[in-house]
Amino acid sequence: MALTFVTSNQHKFQEVSELAVKRGIEVVHYKWRYVEIQADDLEEIARASAKEVSAQLKCPCFVEDAGLFVMALKGFPGPYSNYVFRTLGNSGILKLMSGVNNRDAEFRSAVGYCEPGGEPMVFVGRVEGEIAEQVRGQGGFGFDPIFIPREGDGRTFAEMPVSEKNLFSHRARAVDRFLNWFIELKR
Amino acid sequence: MALTFVTSNQHKFQEVSELAVKRGIEVVHYKWRYVEIQADDLEEIARASAKEVSAQLKCPCFVEDAGLFVMALKGFPGPYSNYVFRTLGNSGILKLMSGVNNRDAEFRSAVGYCEPGGEPMVFVGRVEGEIAEQVRGQGGFGFDPIFIPREGDGRTFAEMPVSEKNLFSHRARAVDRFLNWFIELKR
Repeated sequence: MALTFVTSNQHKFQEVSELAVKRGIEVVHYKWRYVEIQADDLEEIARASAKEVSAQLKCPCFVEDAGLFVMALKGFPGPYSNYVFRTLGNSGILKLMSGVNNRDAEFRSAVGYCEPGGEPMVFVGRVEGEIAEQVRGQGGFGFDPIFIPREGDGRTFAEMPVSEKNLFSHRARAVDRFLNWFIELKR
Repeated sequence: MALTFVTSNQHKFQEVSELAVKRGIEVVHYKWRYVEIQADDLEEIARASAKEVSAQLKCPCFVEDAGLFVMALKGFPGPYSNYVFRTLGNSGILKLMSGVNNRDAEFRSAVGYCEPGGEPMVFVGRVEGEIAEQVRGQGGFGFDPIFIPREGDGRTFAEMPVSEKNLFSHRARAVDRFLNWFIELKR
């Protein structure tokens, strides 16, 4: 059983592929920087993207959209995490958070799956944590070096190997929910 | 001669309407928070929006997208200025710019016009300036209170009445280019 994952992000593909293989599902990587819509809500973006890519590729496929939501910044950078990472980077978030006591944040992920002509399904995952005082770690990608998951031992996501991050990451949770549904559907 | 301007922003409508009336063109306000695409480039967003709204409304219409591009922040907040204003606000930009010597910035505007089934036309305008050290003024909207246009006398856009801002704003320049083209087209 194979599934097509549409993403331009190699890191995402590795994380998702590792999760799927454990469930006996092969994930085929279709590299494409497709156009996303602007919305404050990841689910809305994933729903629109899944519908669009499945229509254009004419095959069932899934996408994943994720973001870091910092509570003291009213959810910023949220759905625009990719753009904000490319412009402000981790140091920009740390600057915005300097002198801020409430460092609560969460990573959210939304997986969208769609078959051509069908209605998209969306599965979400989240992980609570806090913004670190400084950048730590070489692993992961994006804002991983400044995010400390609450369920962990104080290390940032960037200080963990993918297999450990996958134990409780937002992406792993959304992908697991999707795979549970998909496996049940195809039984 | 009347033109339909699709926007959910009352301030934008006022600025644009004032410019059009001077040229003998009436602007009809169609209030709609349509869905925009994500792109680093305003022109691409305006082009896609114009095509989409004219197709859905089945009439010729125009849209306008604008953003503040801060050089020291690699263009941030750029096309996501609306979201960033709603989350970080003016104080967030000032915090990011604290201790930064290069305060160069520019406002950019892109007007997209399309007739149903046709190809969109895009007209751009820009105004150079710098980021103020603090919020100043009650007029305008968005990041106007922290933007000092280089051609002015040191006041921010929010310290000017609309008629004065319209003498050299990014939006006025884009709209004027559009109106010149449109008037020529309909002659």
